[in-house]
Formats: sequence, C-alpha cells, structure tokens
Amino acid sequence: MISICIIGSGNVAYHLFHAFLKSKEIEVRQLVTRTLKEDFPKDLQIHDYELIKSVDVVIISVSDDAIEKVASKVAHLNTLIVHTSGTSSIDVLNSCKRKGVFYPLQTFSKNKTIDFSKLPICLEAFSNEDAYLLEKLAKSISTSVHEISSEQRKTLHIAAVFVCNFVNHLYVIGEDICKKNKVPFEILKPLITETANKINYLNPKDAQTGPAIRNDSFTLYKHIQFIENEEYKKIYKLLTQSIQDVKKL
Amino acid sequence: MISICIIGSGNVAYHLFHAFLKSKEIEVRQLVTRTLKEDFPKDLQIHDYELIKSVDVVIISVSDDAIEKVASKVAHLNTLIVHTSGTSSIDVLNSCKRKGVFYPLQTFSKNKTIDFSKLPICLEAFSNEDAYLLEKLAKSISTSVHEISSEQRKTLHIAAVFVCNFVNHLYVIGEDICKKNKVPFEILKPLITETANKINYLNPKDAQTGPAIRNDSFTLYKHIQFIENEEYKKIYKLLTQSIQDVKKL
Repeated sequence: MISICIIGSGNVAYHLFHAFLKSKEIEVRQLVTRTLKEDFPKDLQIHDYELIKSVDVVIISVSDDAIEKVASKVAHLNTLIVHTSGTSSIDVLNSCKRKGVFYPLQTFSKNKTIDFSKLPICLEAFSNEDAYLLEKLAKSISTSVHEISSEQRKTLHIAAVFVCNFVNHLYVIGEDICKKNKVPFEILKPLITETANKINYLNPKDAQTGPAIRNDSFTLYKHIQFIENEEYKKIYKLLTQSIQDVKKL
Repeated sequence: MISICIIGSGNVAYHLFHAFLKSKEIEVRQLVTRTLKEDFPKDLQIHDYELIKSVDVVIISVSDDAIEKVASKVAHLNTLIVHTSGTSSIDVLNSCKRKGVFYPLQTFSKNKTIDFSKLPICLEAFSNEDAYLLEKLAKSISTSVHEISSEQRKTLHIAAVFVCNFVNHLYVIGEDICKKNKVPFEILKPLITETANKINYLNPKDAQTGPAIRNDSFTLYKHIQFIENEEYKKIYKLLTQSIQDVKKL
C-alpha cells in the first residue's frame, strides 16, 4: 500500500485524486486545498501544510508558477515530493530532500471522465528507490508508464500543445464558422473522430488530405474569400503554407 | 435496385465504389477510369465515355477543376448526374439535364478503410424525384443523410479544412518536434484520441486547456524559445493569440 497526499484542486489534481481513490494499492490520506472544495470529500481536505501526515509520496499538482513556493512548504519532509507539470523541470523541487516528476500526459476537464488505464504517465526521479516507488504508484492506475527526462518532457509538452490545445482551437474555429453560417457542427464530428483515428494506421504525413496538399489553388482562393474573420483568414493562410512547405521536404 | 456508374479513380471514388459494392440495393455497373487501375475490378472499368450503359445515377468523383469538363461528356444522358465535391456548386453540372450533389463528408486515404454506416452524406438535388433517388442511394450505405445546399456545403467544407486537414497538419508538426528531439510520438496518441473524443461531451470552447487559455506567459515564452523551426514558431504564436482572443469574446 502506498500512501499519498495531493496538494492542489485543479483539473489534474481532481482526476488524479479520483483515479487513486479507485486503486486498491493506494491510500489517498490527505488533500491540501486553499479553501474547502465541494468536488472533493470534506474529511480528506486540509488547508494548512503543518497538518500534513506522514505519507510515502506528496504530489504537488498546482499551476507551474506556484510549484516552487508550495515545494518550499513541504521541503522539510523526508517524503518523496513530485510535481505533475509538463513544463517545469524537476529542479523546481530543489529545496526538497527527495524529488521527482509524475506527469500524466492527457487533457483534463472537470466535467469529462478519463480512462486512466492506458493514459501515459511520464516519470522522473533521482534514486533507484524513488524511481521504483513512482513506478509502482503509476502502475497502480495505468499500464502506460514511461521514464522521461525533464528535457524530453519539455518536448512532449510542446508537441502536446500542438496536437491537443491547438487542435481543440481549430475545433472552436470550425464550430464558429458553422454557427455563423447556420450549419450544424454535429455533421463534422465523424470527420473529427476519423482524423484522429487515422494516425493509428498511417503516419500523419501520409494521412494529409485537402486542398492545400493537392495545391488546389482555386478552392484555396475561394475559401480565403469566404472567411470573414481576419484572424481565421491568417490561420488558414499560414497552415496552408506550412502544409505545402512540409510537402516539399 | 439502383444502378450506378462512377467516374474517377481517386480516394473518394475508391471508397464510394467499395461501399456501394457491398450494398445489396446498389448495382455498380461501370467505372470510368482514364487507364486501367489495379485497385478496381478489371471487368467493370471502361475508358471511353461513349461506352457508358444506361444507369440510374452517374457519380462524377474527379478533382474540382475537372468536374465541368467531365459533366459535358455525359450531358446528353437522361440520367441523374451528381458530383461528390465539397467545394463545387451544383451549378458546375449546368450542362446536364438532371443534376445533383452526393458529398460524403469524410477524409479518405486509400490505405485506410472507412466505416460508412454513420458517415454523413450531404445531398442536393432540384426535383423531388431526384432528391428521393439520391436519398435512397445514400441510405443504402449510411444512416447519416442530410439535405445541404451548395452554400451550406461550402461552409461545411471550409470548417472541415480546419477540423481535419489543419488538425492533421498539427499532428505532422507534433510528430516532427518529437522526432527531432528523440521522443516517441506514440506517447501522444491517447492525448490525440481524447482531444477528439472530448467534444462529444463538451463544446470545443469549454474543452480548451493548456498554457494559452491559462495565459501562462512563462510557459508560452519557454515554448517559443524552444521551437527552432521558424514556421512552427509563427503557428505557435498565431494560434496562442487566437485562443486568447476567443477567450475575451
């Protein structure tokens, strides 16, 4: 049994908390929140770092700019302290005696449940003992566990911004264009699913379709004329150019 | 039984041909190709428009700039002539006696099979009789059949470029960034799947996550510093700006 304490109440903390709660190998002993949060059990929440009980791992799941400050408040503990950030180096925990990273590579929204069983968890630790402990912790909720250095994690996080955050923004634009022209966005959902699904069979470069890769200049021209929003027009032109530039390589 | 003839041998023609071939309600009588194509049955292929037999529907599935010319070659027939384009208006078939549109809204690659059963098919016709015939044809392969005007179809196609072609290009960039930094792109696949899946539960605006929407300027700065490719850097900046602009609305 591994005992843990989670610090934070954001989307990542929320989903990790519930995943660990379901695992029989993990005891979630405490949750440190600033104020009482309704979406977590009342009896597990504390608001004072002094009250943290002895646990095997403390998981800091707060915004990047707050990690270092939070770490300094638990630095006196002999416990393994980890953060869950894709961006921050393991070094932001330098004040701690034992430090590590536990980065679940996924997009978390509170109102959407997540299947953790295949969710990639990227781990980093210094000692073999801590690496083993983190691996056990990660394997209690997922089968996809990876040793990833801070530098590799930075790469993954930047790539994730492109394939997740920016992709979702293109969905936002697609929906907006449909709404403004009174066409149901729903009709596009099978296309969105298939576009994501396809790269399990083809590499993305081979999966590219559409007027840009075909260099169908008449369609490209008509589309640019049609789009009214100046920012969307810029995005259309830049991504079209980039598709054509990659094709030339 | 509806008899059809397909003109073309590209990705759309290929997948439509195989979907119709499986349907018991449809007889694919002929396929017009420029030269003999190995990925279609030899005995169904003809290369001369003069040899087209009498059918209920002729489906022109060629590149946008060739539709009008191909249509003129079958304009003498009393048959319903349709094209499969997202971009072209129904008017490019003005030379034909009976005209329509049969637009399957999906991304087609030859090496990836497609489940047609829920694939949205957008139809346009002039007479009730032709609309009924097209509906029957579409329903023989899909349960998602929609009456869509040429203007609405243009909107859908532009939105599709954003949510499919541009999205796939972001996968290309994500893979490239991983490759250059020796991190396995595979680790990002569950994230890609979940990002697409999420909008079946949340609307895209509510599903947005990441440093841009959080206005995490330190992470944004570090990412921009890290990205070497100038075009990727431009895309990163423009999409970040756009996420933040949409948030303000």
